[in-house]
Amino acid sequence: MNNRFTSMLSGLLFASLSFNAATAHAQSDNFSTQQLAQVEQIKQQALQSDLAWNLVESLTTEVGPRMPGTPGDKAAVAWAVAKFKAMGFDKVWTEPATFPKWIRYSESAAIVSPSPQPLHITALGNSISTPKAGIQAQVIEFQTLAELENAPEDAAKGKIVFINYRMNRDRDGNGYGPAVQARSRGAVVAAQKGAIGYVMRSVSTAYHRFAHTGGSHYKDGVTKIVTSAISNADADQLHRLVALGKPVTININVQAKSMGEGTSYNVIAEFTGTEFPEQHVLIGGHLDSWDLGTGALDDGAGVAITMAAAKLSVSKGQPKRSIRVVLFAAEEFGLWGAKAYVKANKNSLRNIVAAAESDFGADKIWAFDSNVHTRSLSLVSDIAAMLKSLDVEYLAKNSARGGPDLIPFRPFNIPAFGLSQDGTDYFDYHHTADDTLDKIDPEKLRQNVATYAVFTFMAANAKTRIMGK
Amino acid sequence: MNNRFTSMLSGLLFASLSFNAATAHAQSDNFSTQQLAQVEQIKQQALQSDLAWNLVESLTTEVGPRMPGTPGDKAAVAWAVAKFKAMGFDKVWTEPATFPKWIRYSESAAIVSPSPQPLHITALGNSISTPKAGIQAQVIEFQTLAELENAPEDAAKGKIVFINYRMNRDRDGNGYGPAVQARSRGAVVAAQKGAIGYVMRSVSTAYHRFAHTGGSHYKDGVTKIVTSAISNADADQLHRLVALGKPVTININVQAKSMGEGTSYNVIAEFTGTEFPEQHVLIGGHLDSWDLGTGALDDGAGVAITMAAAKLSVSKGQPKRSIRVVLFAAEEFGLWGAKAYVKANKNSLRNIVAAAESDFGADKIWAFDSNVHTRSLSLVSDIAAMLKSLDVEYLAKNSARGGPDLIPFRPFNIPAFGLSQDGTDYFDYHHTADDTLDKIDPEKLRQNVATYAVFTFMAANAKTRIMGK
Repeated sequence: MNNRFTSMLSGLLFASLSFNAATAHAQSDNFSTQQLAQVEQIKQQALQSDLAWNLVESLTTEVGPRMPGTPGDKAAVAWAVAKFKAMGFDKVWTEPATFPKWIRYSESAAIVSPSPQPLHITALGNSISTPKAGIQAQVIEFQTLAELENAPEDAAKGKIVFINYRMNRDRDGNGYGPAVQARSRGAVVAAQKGAIGYVMRSVSTAYHRFAHTGGSHYKDGVTKIVTSAISNADADQLHRLVALGKPVTININVQAKSMGEGTSYNVIAEFTGTEFPEQHVLIGGHLDSWDLGTGALDDGAGVAITMAAAKLSVSKGQPKRSIRVVLFAAEEFGLWGAKAYVKANKNSLRNIVAAAESDFGADKIWAFDSNVHTRSLSLVSDIAAMLKSLDVEYLAKNSARGGPDLIPFRPFNIPAFGLSQDGTDYFDYHHTADDTLDKIDPEKLRQNVATYAVFTFMAANAKTRIMGK
Repeated sequence: MNNRFTSMLSGLLFASLSFNAATAHAQSDNFSTQQLAQVEQIKQQALQSDLAWNLVESLTTEVGPRMPGTPGDKAAVAWAVAKFKAMGFDKVWTEPATFPKWIRYSESAAIVSPSPQPLHITALGNSISTPKAGIQAQVIEFQTLAELENAPEDAAKGKIVFINYRMNRDRDGNGYGPAVQARSRGAVVAAQKGAIGYVMRSVSTAYHRFAHTGGSHYKDGVTKIVTSAISNADADQLHRLVALGKPVTININVQAKSMGEGTSYNVIAEFTGTEFPEQHVLIGGHLDSWDLGTGALDDGAGVAITMAAAKLSVSKGQPKRSIRVVLFAAEEFGLWGAKAYVKANKNSLRNIVAAAESDFGADKIWAFDSNVHTRSLSLVSDIAAMLKSLDVEYLAKNSARGGPDLIPFRPFNIPAFGLSQDGTDYFDYHHTADDTLDKIDPEKLRQNVATYAVFTFMAANAKTRIMGK
């Protein structure tokens, strides 16, 4: 509750600071004085708006979990189409995306000996099932994937491999990359060493007993074994028991299934530009989520922030260039919606004047950066100036990546932008049952919307278009 | 990690403050100068000691969950007997306690319509099972138990009653009493109004998606219906859906069983007094836990704090009066160990010179108070003076209650003491799967042990005995 109060205060602070900013940045080669005043008005409006909150509340409550290919995913697509229409977007359409469908039925695990007790486990995406009674074997622990890779052949023969690597917490989420290796391919390496099952410490910074799911892969020619993750508290417990030196036996029971090819839809909506309708700002998030939580932070927030920002950014009238919101399908299973989008829209990708995906929760946006042609840097710097009063720092490295769903866009050198949420707490909730609406702070969400709305308006209405590298 | 660092600093602060205190309180009618110096030494020793940590780590790891009547409970009794012996207590014994045994097999729930999604639920202790396929019905929501009580007869006919009362957070845990009514007897009132099932918002201050279990009761002559609790996040979700105005249908599946009478054991150990062996200080916690977590805060901490404090309090030699540690059985099912203890030890209860149970987690002890004859207040005040350097406030209300397991002792006017942990976060974890070892801060645990050790030493070695009211 204290947190709420603090952020209400900083909300008021934004408001007072940004009026000063309106005066300070009233001159620019890229924008008229009137436009800069409009940016200020949009910013203030966004800081007062409940639109994004209402969207993410509706999506997480009335749809709930929406794993690709499930009824929830289908409901989410219908939800998004209906919301875009109700919000008055000029065009609303869907584009199909296919993906390897996978379903989780049940999962459980327990320490069998020496001290019987349940383990909080989750199957990783794509995991095979165990036999109905589960698998039961002695645990062999490794601290890192590299340690497992360097172990002798047959080191894990007949055992369940446990990788105990703990992810680092930091604002940029830089701990994720190193930790996620063990999730992506831990089961492959474990099987190569003779293991019959694989369990890892979750890719998690959490202090709470939630297992984190996430994508994983098998490799042709390597036996598929069950692949799973346990919570930090359970990993601590397993580690302590193994460290006592007696054999530790666990049981893992996962019932899950690969279902062949599934289909879902990117949901796309546009406010059409008046002067250069084919040119467009592309913002968005991904509409799908994992099945354990209701996908509030990942990525209901991104969906809501970008839908609301697009709407708010046209409150002063139709934009010069089009503003397109893309809600990507099946991101969690491997960016399938983004890949389909790039394929289907190959010929118009050059018309993207700015692209940003919000897929890192809803904590305050603390940094802004671009990845554009040097010619466009003065324009970027004008945007950054207008974001200052929102407490957003301009990094000026010009190497932004733009969000996971923009990875398939990279070969096309689109002008990508990073509007970076503070990710310090993001991996406490990511891919868990605990990713629910209450984890979003409404005041911080408004700061996100204001940041996106300012960026979107300015990129869409600048005198010249932003160019990619 | 920051927290750890802060509490290391305050650990150092304790240490430096308490050397000053040794000088300041060197005079007393109740203690010799040498004794007061010994108190200081014991305090310092306790602030450096890992004994309690090692005990609670061992209990929660090597035994784990220990619900009354389960194999874990049996293992805990064996664990306690062995530890007491290994620690060199003079006497170690057990005393039987019987209780109504109850077992949880499985539990699950889901919103069936309008937006299908799982609910994080737990059966309350003593709940009956549903049919194998669960029960499914429309939800009817009430904000409080009183609102349900005041509803018309048949208000809930054929429905599942949902009570949405949210517990308050505070240092003293004063929110627990009002909230727990709906847990104890919500299902009875719901059944009286025609409901076929009962679910409540957990008795919880948590920000995380854990359902909190706890004791509940049926009433003769009232139909038994399944009784359960959902996490705060799930209660929010259910409330939002009900508020949308369309019928909300949920499914609850609980498999559990009452098993007749079970038996467990109070585990008792004593350092025998040299001058007045029959007189004794009684400290302790409860050895049992709920089944969902590993009972670290509830009440592994209390077990470890009092075992360690007793041991440390005799480090300067055998005490004048005996020091008895009682690890009560079956507290969670209704203070059955405490009731059995009072019955079996009726004739010696008058020999208790001071009693305190630690059953409120392991956050810092912030307050100290007594419930004794006015004649003994100068002695209490001497103890309070020695606790000051540990940052423990003397409340001086002389109305301490002494912990849940001391409730059956009340008719006997024993001198009860309150060594009050800060309970602000306690109900985030209480009775959940999230009550695990990582929730205990080793440095705060040491402050608890130091407080208990000072109290125990002084009550056992004072010139005159402390008298009850």
